[in-house]
Amino acid sequence: MIIVMQQNATEQDVADVFERVKKFGYTPKMIEGSLRKVIAALGDGRDKAQLQSLESLHHVESVVPILKPYKLCSREVKRENTIIDVKGVKIGGKSLVVMAGPCSVESKDQLMETGMAVKAAGATILRGGAFKPRTSPYSFQGMGKKGLQLLRDVSDATGMPIVTEVMSPKELNLICEYADIIQIGARNMQNFSMLKDIGKKNKPVLLKRGLANTIEEWLMSAEYIMSEGNTQVMLCERGIRTFETATRNTLDLSAVPLIKEKTHLPIIVDPSHGVGYWQYVKSMSLAAVASGADGLMIEVHWKPEEAFSDGPQSLKPAKFAALMKDMGKVAKAVGRSL
Amino acid sequence: MIIVMQQNATEQDVADVFERVKKFGYTPKMIEGSLRKVIAALGDGRDKAQLQSLESLHHVESVVPILKPYKLCSREVKRENTIIDVKGVKIGGKSLVVMAGPCSVESKDQLMETGMAVKAAGATILRGGAFKPRTSPYSFQGMGKKGLQLLRDVSDATGMPIVTEVMSPKELNLICEYADIIQIGARNMQNFSMLKDIGKKNKPVLLKRGLANTIEEWLMSAEYIMSEGNTQVMLCERGIRTFETATRNTLDLSAVPLIKEKTHLPIIVDPSHGVGYWQYVKSMSLAAVASGADGLMIEVHWKPEEAFSDGPQSLKPAKFAALMKDMGKVAKAVGRSL
Amino acid sequence: MIIVMQQNATEQDVADVFERVKKFGYTPKMIEGSLRKVIAALGDGRDKAQLQSLESLHHVESVVPILKPYKLCSREVKRENTIIDVKGVKIGGKSLVVMAGPCSVESKDQLMETGMAVKAAGATILRGGAFKPRTSPYSFQGMGKKGLQLLRDVSDATGMPIVTEVMSPKELNLICEYADIIQIGARNMQNFSMLKDIGKKNKPVLLKRGLANTIEEWLMSAEYIMSEGNTQVMLCERGIRTFETATRNTLDLSAVPLIKEKTHLPIIVDPSHGVGYWQYVKSMSLAAVASGADGLMIEVHWKPEEAFSDGPQSLKPAKFAALMKDMGKVAKAVGRSL
Amino acid sequence: MIIVMQQNATEQDVADVFERVKKFGYTPKMIEGSLRKVIAALGDGRDKAQLQSLESLHHVESVVPILKPYKLCSREVKRENTIIDVKGVKIGGKSLVVMAGPCSVESKDQLMETGMAVKAAGATILRGGAFKPRTSPYSFQGMGKKGLQLLRDVSDATGMPIVTEVMSPKELNLICEYADIIQIGARNMQNFSMLKDIGKKNKPVLLKRGLANTIEEWLMSAEYIMSEGNTQVMLCERGIRTFETATRNTLDLSAVPLIKEKTHLPIIVDPSHGVGYWQYVKSMSLAAVASGADGLMIEVHWKPEEAFSDGPQSLKPAKFAALMKDMGKVAKAVGRSL
Repeated sequence: MIIVMQQNATEQDVADVFERVKKFGYTPKMIEGSLRKVIAALGDGRDKAQLQSLESLHHVESVVPILKPYKLCSREVKRENTIIDVKGVKIGGKSLVVMAGPCSVESKDQLMETGMAVKAAGATILRGGAFKPRTSPYSFQGMGKKGLQLLRDVSDATGMPIVTEVMSPKELNLICEYADIIQIGARNMQNFSMLKDIGKKNKPVLLKRGLANTIEEWLMSAEYIMSEGNTQVMLCERGIRTFETATRNTLDLSAVPLIKEKTHLPIIVDPSHGVGYWQYVKSMSLAAVASGADGLMIEVHWKPEEAFSDGPQSLKPAKFAALMKDMGKVAKAVGRSL
Repeated sequence: MIIVMQQNATEQDVADVFERVKKFGYTPKMIEGSLRKVIAALGDGRDKAQLQSLESLHHVESVVPILKPYKLCSREVKRENTIIDVKGVKIGGKSLVVMAGPCSVESKDQLMETGMAVKAAGATILRGGAFKPRTSPYSFQGMGKKGLQLLRDVSDATGMPIVTEVMSPKELNLICEYADIIQIGARNMQNFSMLKDIGKKNKPVLLKRGLANTIEEWLMSAEYIMSEGNTQVMLCERGIRTFETATRNTLDLSAVPLIKEKTHLPIIVDPSHGVGYWQYVKSMSLAAVASGADGLMIEVHWKPEEAFSDGPQSLKPAKFAALMKDMGKVAKAVGRSL
Repeated sequence: MIIVMQQNATEQDVADVFERVKKFGYTPKMIEGSLRKVIAALGDGRDKAQLQSLESLHHVESVVPILKPYKLCSREVKRENTIIDVKGVKIGGKSLVVMAGPCSVESKDQLMETGMAVKAAGATILRGGAFKPRTSPYSFQGMGKKGLQLLRDVSDATGMPIVTEVMSPKELNLICEYADIIQIGARNMQNFSMLKDIGKKNKPVLLKRGLANTIEEWLMSAEYIMSEGNTQVMLCERGIRTFETATRNTLDLSAVPLIKEKTHLPIIVDPSHGVGYWQYVKSMSLAAVASGADGLMIEVHWKPEEAFSDGPQSLKPAKFAALMKDMGKVAKAVGRSL
Repeated sequence: MIIVMQQNATEQDVADVFERVKKFGYTPKMIEGSLRKVIAALGDGRDKAQLQSLESLHHVESVVPILKPYKLCSREVKRENTIIDVKGVKIGGKSLVVMAGPCSVESKDQLMETGMAVKAAGATILRGGAFKPRTSPYSFQGMGKKGLQLLRDVSDATGMPIVTEVMSPKELNLICEYADIIQIGARNMQNFSMLKDIGKKNKPVLLKRGLANTIEEWLMSAEYIMSEGNTQVMLCERGIRTFETATRNTLDLSAVPLIKEKTHLPIIVDPSHGVGYWQYVKSMSLAAVASGADGLMIEVHWKPEEAFSDGPQSLKPAKFAALMKDMGKVAKAVGRSL
């Protein structure tokens, strides 16, 4: 941490800060600037919140952190890429993973038809929500346990492992019985209590980025899970909230190279939620592959115009199959495979 | 809902949409524009998600909602202000409520000293966190049950009811034993599963606005709680996330007149989180009172420079006492009292 | 500036950075952290862009600025408030200034009626646009020179000085003939070329904050004007662009205490553009007064429902007159006057 | 436009709105909803500002626009792609254009070396700034006319046409003498007065998206230029301002498919400003190609660590040459060429 003193800070003010820095377990070091006195607080403690509290002192102008606050997910701790094995599907290696399926599980026919279609097109993981986070209490809330059973049935029929969302610690054990990957939705990215619970499970996790969360906060949420022992974490960029209303969210693809640089965890992109309209899903899927993503999560529905949720952003199976071919070409162009 | 057809939509495309609108239970009505055909879908159904799915049709350009999606919290349903009685403290009436105390409960002395001081200055509700949502797993996570007991002790000593945050449904019953008002933090505003659980309790709720949530989404979260039966909901504006970094968040005071216009629920303002630095808390507290807020939630700490969390934004007791006097004057100027 | 080296940086990498820092005219100083080597670059140069370029070196992790980049507008350079005298109206002192009038000058009757009304209600500066920045080329673009003449006529009749917007350096001399205060609109806040031109004029300037500009960038634009010699600059907060769509912009009132702390310049608030709907203008005007603003700029129109621009956010004269009384009470409560 | 009446609006209120709609030249049509009366205002007028003013009426809840406000740039007016020919370089066709060079022109050696290198690597347009928009008045402001002459010299030596930025109408004629493409920077996207001036020139224009401007506003700025007669407009996405600080801006690649769908104009992507760090430029360049962009604008500098501006985001010539090869492969994969 760098502590910047006010211009008019006295020798005694500086001495006071020195004392406090030492009390918190850090080593203070003076830097005599031409306009400001600056104090470096040296030490490896990772809870900087108390040091930050020094900002409340009258003679301190600001406290500036220098080190990144995450550790376990950092490339400095582990240089090689983490590869997560989900029933034989490898996530984070040279080959990209494609997770596809409907937003919500709605019926046996809907899920089986859609599941068969995405499998035939080359998808390797089945997605589908049984517990649904909906803005309105009057919207369809998901089929619950029955939906999980349908996911399992289609998984058995197609051989594709399942990724599905958990919304509450109360359903965590139930979800773990059915799911192969536990999805943490954007709205729960900072549900710290549930992150800790999931950190105690031995299951791969897909952690979606929150709508208004920085990449650093996202990595701190991964750190919550990893610090409890579960290191099988993959990150999923799904668009952030900005002022633009022409798309549902703004897909931040620059998160891909950033995540690859700073961490060893796999990064998945969800273009469906990112843009919110099926018309733009193709372009952004190809862009995600080119940007270096380790996989994609794409919403496919057999009858989007009748979907209980997210109809406007769902691809029909035929469009998805064509997209898979196009993605294969781009993957090859960047030295990867689908 | 208003369904705007593509410019080149045929008669048959329109007939197709008519059929679908009827199937979803709405009555279609044609509007022949000069450049576009537009179809109004009339009906009172509140789950518009399916109707929105029509956007996935090739010949539909967009589907535009007309009605507001909330109902129970709306002034159209209940014209007079909701007044919530918390052990005799009335929230939502002519007199403003002030909730004050430390960010985290840290020790008996800290809480008792601070609680006594805010009480003496005129605060009527005691705030303090026992379970703390922290961005980093390496930061202080709160004293837990022991913190709740300290809150109860100070409440007994001062006569002030308690507001404290719940972070997980697992702790909900415990929190309800101690708290007089259950606080839902910004990061849990769309933890829909927990909202439903809280909706089944007979306890006043303080619902903070999410960092990146619109006012409409905020009201939909209130609607979640109210639709389960708990109508004692107060809203709390605490700043939204924007591009500005000079303040911790951007306090959106325009939410106050908006909430008062659209709903019958009380609106509280938390300037401490809104700005993040104690230097600006006074100005924004006075502004909140002038804007028509029903109350304030302010962080006060006996030794901000040693606080385990949020030190930079905490007021010292003496500054808080002076602020209370200033707020009293502004309250009087706008026809309210403190 | 603080230069943070990569974890694996060698002695030679550090020596290389030392050389470069010296070459740019700064004095390097080593700080041996436990995890990182950090170099402080000491010196008073204010163009940090070159130093920032060191970030492009492989062995440098980041370059962190410590000093604020503005100077002339800073309280460190001038402690007492700047008070601007516009034909006898003092801006920045104990008494608040109210600038009122229509968005656009539309006709003689419209301007005269509205001008007389706001004057009678206590406004002291007349606002009105003759050159209008409009998102669409098909919208009303303002009356131009004829509008300036009408402003002058109403100014002569009422005794109120005029504030009006300049959109191009081509019209700057013309505007200066008629206006008493030159307004720089939000969209031109970083029209640096025009800022320099205006800096050479001897006229008070009202500099609106850009829709997506930080407070620091805003002050740098003031610095552009002041560094050319014109120090009569007042700042105007008018709302920033965020994800919220219930209001036209998000009025950032926390800018008021921030500006008062960091600079000696007067700060005006424009609640009309801030919220975009007349219903919320009253609350936000009162809040602005309570927050410590030095003045307000409010849109008033004799017939808002027929306005060529900004009708929804314009107050009728009677509502404005009532608001003036309410603002007077709040001003008094915070030790100011109207 | 759709005019939504308040729930308690009377027959007379509706009659009043009918009258006003007719007076503004539109045809009102009644839609009797179950909860609200809604009035459709039919007509092709494109200035909707006056109609919007009806929102100021007490009995009107909201006025919702249905038609897009742009016309000349719309695909509805011209279905086939616009291809712009700049001295033989075709922009908007099957082959992608790459514009490369330094942020600022700094010296003859710097520009000639960099220009030769990017030409050798396959770039076809030379970029470089002679007039520089800088946040600080104390930063390097560009070489001005001398910089333009250097650009011309390097253009003559390499055969590459020039794109360079205009910052003021005062320099427009001068810029037109030297430049082959006039660049309008992000900060001037809504400098409407200058847009009109540029619309009168017979020169290709590169219009950068503003930091906080929606795609619709961007197209309206293109409309400003086109409505004056200049139809040779290409758009350039360069990142928008969001809450994320890990990158300089957030590159909104979803703008690419959106622009291609809604307009016939070419779309260029500037990943250098989009991310702000050279480390991420490669990924985002490849993503831009895959997303369907018609070209790229990339900052290249012979010695980034000594650059007067934007050093951290500039590629060295060797890295740029490698990137050109990779981009060629991705272009081929999506059926384009470089």
